[in-house]
Amino acid sequence: MGKSFVNPDLLKERASCSFNKEELTNLLDGGKEATEHRRALESYILSIPGAFEGVSKYDHLGHKEFYEVAVAKSKKIMGALQVSNMEGVGTPQEAFQMLFGGWMGSTLGLDGNPLAVHYGMFLPCILGQGTPEQIVKWLHMGWTLEIIGCYAQVTELGHGTFVRGLETTAVYDPKAEEFILNTPTLTSLKWWPGGCEFQVAVVGNTATHAIVVAQLYTRGECRGVHPFIVPLRNMDDHSPLSGIEIGDIGRRMAFNAADNGFLRLTNVRIPRENLLMKHAQVLQDGTYIRPANSKLSYGTMVFVRVMICRDMCNQLKKAVTIATRYSAVRRQSEISPGYGKYNIASVNDITQPEIDVPGAGEVQILDFVTQQWKLFPALATAFGIHFGFQYVMEQYHQVNEHVNNGDLDTLPQLHILSCGLKAQSTGDAQYFVEVCRMACGGHGFLMSSQFPQIYGLCAAASIYEGENTVLWLQVARYLMKSELQQTFQAEAINKGCLFQGQTLCLDAVLNAFLCVAHGRIRSSFHNLQSLISQGGICFEEAMNRSSVALVSAAKAYIRHFSVAQFVAHVKNQMSQGTRNILGTLCRLYSLFWMLEDLGDFIIYAHVSSEDLKHLEMTRGELLREIRPEAVNLVDAFDLRDEVLVSALGAYDGNVYEHLYDAALKSPLNHLIKSKL
Amino acid sequence: MGKSFVNPDLLKERASCSFNKEELTNLLDGGKEATEHRRALESYILSIPGAFEGVSKYDHLGHKEFYEVAVAKSKKIMGALQVSNMEGVGTPQEAFQMLFGGWMGSTLGLDGNPLAVHYGMFLPCILGQGTPEQIVKWLHMGWTLEIIGCYAQVTELGHGTFVRGLETTAVYDPKAEEFILNTPTLTSLKWWPGGCEFQVAVVGNTATHAIVVAQLYTRGECRGVHPFIVPLRNMDDHSPLSGIEIGDIGRRMAFNAADNGFLRLTNVRIPRENLLMKHAQVLQDGTYIRPANSKLSYGTMVFVRVMICRDMCNQLKKAVTIATRYSAVRRQSEISPGYGKYNIASVNDITQPEIDVPGAGEVQILDFVTQQWKLFPALATAFGIHFGFQYVMEQYHQVNEHVNNGDLDTLPQLHILSCGLKAQSTGDAQYFVEVCRMACGGHGFLMSSQFPQIYGLCAAASIYEGENTVLWLQVARYLMKSELQQTFQAEAINKGCLFQGQTLCLDAVLNAFLCVAHGRIRSSFHNLQSLISQGGICFEEAMNRSSVALVSAAKAYIRHFSVAQFVAHVKNQMSQGTRNILGTLCRLYSLFWMLEDLGDFIIYAHVSSEDLKHLEMTRGELLREIRPEAVNLVDAFDLRDEVLVSALGAYDGNVYEHLYDAALKSPLNHLIKSKL
Ligand SMILES: Cc1cc2nc3c(=O)[nH]c(=O)nc-3n(C[C@H](O)[C@H](O)[C@H](O)COP(=O)(O)OP(=O)(O)OC[C@H]3O[C@@H](n4cnc5c(N)ncnc54)[C@H](O)[C@@H]3O)c2cc1C
Ligand SMILES: Cc1cc2nc3c(=O)[nH]c(=O)nc-3n(C[C@H](O)[C@H](O)[C@H](O)COP(=O)(O)OP(=O)(O)OC[C@H]3O[C@@H](n4cnc5c(N)ncnc54)[C@H](O)[C@@H]3O)c2cc1C
Repeated sequence: MGKSFVNPDLLKERASCSFNKEELTNLLDGGKEATEHRRALESYILSIPGAFEGVSKYDHLGHKEFYEVAVAKSKKIMGALQVSNMEGVGTPQEAFQMLFGGWMGSTLGLDGNPLAVHYGMFLPCILGQGTPEQIVKWLHMGWTLEIIGCYAQVTELGHGTFVRGLETTAVYDPKAEEFILNTPTLTSLKWWPGGCEFQVAVVGNTATHAIVVAQLYTRGECRGVHPFIVPLRNMDDHSPLSGIEIGDIGRRMAFNAADNGFLRLTNVRIPRENLLMKHAQVLQDGTYIRPANSKLSYGTMVFVRVMICRDMCNQLKKAVTIATRYSAVRRQSEISPGYGKYNIASVNDITQPEIDVPGAGEVQILDFVTQQWKLFPALATAFGIHFGFQYVMEQYHQVNEHVNNGDLDTLPQLHILSCGLKAQSTGDAQYFVEVCRMACGGHGFLMSSQFPQIYGLCAAASIYEGENTVLWLQVARYLMKSELQQTFQAEAINKGCLFQGQTLCLDAVLNAFLCVAHGRIRSSFHNLQSLISQGGICFEEAMNRSSVALVSAAKAYIRHFSVAQFVAHVKNQMSQGTRNILGTLCRLYSLFWMLEDLGDFIIYAHVSSEDLKHLEMTRGELLREIRPEAVNLVDAFDLRDEVLVSALGAYDGNVYEHLYDAALKSPLNHLIKSKL
Repeated sequence: MGKSFVNPDLLKERASCSFNKEELTNLLDGGKEATEHRRALESYILSIPGAFEGVSKYDHLGHKEFYEVAVAKSKKIMGALQVSNMEGVGTPQEAFQMLFGGWMGSTLGLDGNPLAVHYGMFLPCILGQGTPEQIVKWLHMGWTLEIIGCYAQVTELGHGTFVRGLETTAVYDPKAEEFILNTPTLTSLKWWPGGCEFQVAVVGNTATHAIVVAQLYTRGECRGVHPFIVPLRNMDDHSPLSGIEIGDIGRRMAFNAADNGFLRLTNVRIPRENLLMKHAQVLQDGTYIRPANSKLSYGTMVFVRVMICRDMCNQLKKAVTIATRYSAVRRQSEISPGYGKYNIASVNDITQPEIDVPGAGEVQILDFVTQQWKLFPALATAFGIHFGFQYVMEQYHQVNEHVNNGDLDTLPQLHILSCGLKAQSTGDAQYFVEVCRMACGGHGFLMSSQFPQIYGLCAAASIYEGENTVLWLQVARYLMKSELQQTFQAEAINKGCLFQGQTLCLDAVLNAFLCVAHGRIRSSFHNLQSLISQGGICFEEAMNRSSVALVSAAKAYIRHFSVAQFVAHVKNQMSQGTRNILGTLCRLYSLFWMLEDLGDFIIYAHVSSEDLKHLEMTRGELLREIRPEAVNLVDAFDLRDEVLVSALGAYDGNVYEHLYDAALKSPLNHLIKSKL
């Protein structure tokens, strides 16, 4: 077991590469230094003793045991990630970002993370919503883990999407200068707050505080929902404070290491200063001062959604890496006699003299065109998400500066873009991760492949921070209400020819996506107007009636954006080899999403049956072009084995040995010793 | 807790129903008596003490503990399902079918079942492949659980799809009249055999025998793969026989109660009679007699695949029932002020005086058109799968008679149909179960919703008994090689008008699906021929090059079949109310799958932009027609709460109480007592 050499099929794939892998890695990281910095940080994190123990060690635990391991690991990591230990490597903040996002999260061999919410939501929320005094007071305690926060944010048993409908109340008592919090009904129980149950399992390592969003009442009037910091437990013995009950909501499809809990509040009193008052305020006498501008809270939301896009990009990169490497190593079936044999023979020259390729004589499944049509669009889409979120991240920093200068005009559009990209990236990742899993046949169904966990994390992201359908409708509402439709001037769209000779012309393709977005938006708009003017239906009801078409319009709008970002990136400064392969991926990305909505492209972008024939031929060509680069492309994602945590995706490609090793970790196999 | 009344929103939905629910239930069961029989059997099974304990009792267990519970439950069930106990109720065989298929499988609160393989695969395989003497010998012992079989059938660590590539060997030794079995390499380990590991966990309740598929060698020559019965353990003390090693392959995405294991064989000797010899034989002296007809083994495969279609249908019915009831009860957001309130008011008349509807004043999410467009196509597709598998089941019985009379001509086409329907039904179910889950927002992500388990079972079925892509290619190969293309005469297709006045005309729709199937097959065929004639590419290579288009052709062929079955069923004898609603569902089914491949319908069935406008309008109308019937339609599936095992799907609709109850079962909540 544990062969010390690399599978010859992977050696062969790696022996020829038309582009500079390191250049592509740098491009994705944001420069040579960024890559080096990331690698140093990764190495540092992975060297924390006892935190990273490889494949499948915990897959077999029960809900409680699993959670306890997660908490224990978090403690080890927290201990190691202190400024004093990290000199020359980076900041703890960078390490947390890396650990709790999509990049290294599953490295722990777990399914989510119990401290992700503390660092990813609790603290940012205080930063975004607190006054300077509040930030000073809470942030330091949070950062040093003197307090641990959970985020009972919004969701209640009865409400998630519809925030205005929340039932938790916070009534101001001016005599005591306190708020009295209550969850008066079953449906008002806070449900899902991440990081919440911490203390149920492990005394001594507890969520001490929660941010709770509640309906604020002052002077007998409801002022809408506001965020409060609520202490949960006695800081000495960690027992729950009076009026507070916390529990676990039970096992979930994934995310079982991130503790989602429930919270019941009964006449819980907190001081007035625990209302986060950057935007709205309650004065001592109960006077309510409303926020200067309702758009102000968009900032944090944009940030969180962009982070989700980044996570999705990383999850998809993992899935594609695993599936592509496995498909290069897995041999199954014959296309024609000798096909596989020939491939093997050519490997002999470049590798170990004694090769031992399972299924020699059969085809690498990566040579099946159906397999390529599963994996390569997934690969291209990982790049698509990457360039999209990169752009929005830059925009975010710019807009933030404007906002700090009091200029809020650009915020709403950025907010809408982040909503759309969150919905698109989570949807794309969820779809393609599952495609990648299925492309690995039976073995992809094993937890040791890591696919089920990756899928679960993506599927969750389609729900939290705005359920995707609700987000699409939000984008559509903006498109209908704003004058944005006009920026899509019909006359600005010249039907370009999709093909120049044999090649798919990127500018014409981009224009076709524009035509579809424009056409979809315009026809929804007209439909909406005629529903209102003819049927005497109100705007909301008309929106509902046309909502299916509206979602399509919103999707077309955001897809056009992503294609545009991809096309723009291909034009950036880089070597010819890298540009070529990125161009090919960009074509495939466009072609895939075009074929997904072919009807729309025929109707709105006048794609002809002649074009269609060309498109099918081009598909074949693009797949052939990518085929020899596929393994090298996923190598360029530079995901370490410890980050992939997958028996199928390891760099050495010795998948059968890894699968067998992982199986032996099952508690049902305690009597079996490895005999290889 | 445990309100004793039904949620008023569900009462309202049930108060008006345009069709006879019981008639529809009978129609699905296959008649009034069939319904009664099923209900009696269900009640009998559900009354087995200790086997059925409701929601979420086991979600929190570890891999080993979970499996142990599964085995213990199976023992209880086996004890109860004896002929002597079941007089007047049914046969044990019927009970097993009900329990181990998609209908009641998850009723156990588990994820798969450890005896499903014994009854669903091991015994049918002996029946299908054994000689009369072999059947007499093994079947009785199996039926009475004197022996328990597992099915190490085909899959090895290195091979699944490509059966010819299996590495396990069975060499005949004429002196001893024995076969010597070996899994000589790591990749030849039998991997995935269901029912296999049984004995690892629980001594005394063990898989005693396996069917192992191996390369047969007689007289120094390889004769290809054949099935052998291999004793695994000493019948006295249940210790493994010499040369046999059995283990667990580790935790899986689902199916964790169905024990999938691995099996290593080292010089295991079995008597000559343990080769299943209905088709091929080895005589005492080692003479090999090949099977009379290679098609003969299709029979069992058809049967197993049709059973999978039935399971998928049941799984999808469950998911749709859960999501539809939840969507009628869940209230979220406002469409316009008063919208929700109005709905509630009208309930007051027909229900308990004191109503307590969470979110009163908000919209039942079932009123969102986007929500309808998620759930109603899923609902329609459940019917689509039902009618499709029903037809093939009838065909199977007919063809079986032909085969028994020595007429094998109709078998290949039925085999191909069953391949296609297996791929389509698993694909459709997998897709829509996930749509249903997502339509329930955050709560659908909880194990207590039952969605994750249902999804896992469907996702698994897309892989086993023929990975779906491989099956589609098999269908396509048949279409290309047979003369079947000619039965789709171009001239037979008259472009009918999709609409008669305002309504979507079913015959014209069916014709459009025919045009698409025909067009896709024909264009693939031409493409294939020109690749061969021009490029000098061999048939196999040309198949691979055009495989993406070939899969589309195969899918179009099978979808046309399903639409045809649905349309035919609508024309059957039934009351007008039932026919109307089935007709509406049939239209929605067609419309949904038409829009999914709109490009093809524009190209091959000449759907015009005028048609398209009509189609979008018709979509809205069909959804509106189904809306008031939706809850009644899922009620007609007649799935008992014990069968749904879902906090969101219970008949009484008290979802929040059930969610809370389920959460309290988490071991992390052992200190919390219910306080409602
Ligand atoms: C893994 C995970 C972690 C989570 N972590 C947290 C956390 O830390 N803190 C926290 O507060 N919450 C958390 N949540 C909860 C999450 O934020 C909510 O589930 C999410 O906001 C969706 O709301 P919902 O569940 O109420 O869905 P619902 O709104 O009930 O959605 C159900 C269905 O109704 C539809 N629908 C709803 N409203 C509309 C509308 N207006 N128009 C059209 N369709 C509509 C939706 O499209 C969906 O199909 C988490 C959830 C998950 C799954
Ligand atoms: C839950 C579960 C239970 C199971 N139970 C059993 C059991 O009881 N007994 C048993 O023997 N087995 C069992 N199996 C194994 C199952 O039968 C195999 O996984 C299945 O046959 C697929 O084969 P594979 O895993 O080798 O996939 P592969 O063939 O390796 O497929 C991987 C990829 O290659 C592609 N591919 C392969 N060949 C071709 C081709 N010729 N053309 C184009 N593409 C191709 C596939 O489309 C897929 O994308 C089970 C599997 C699961 C998931």
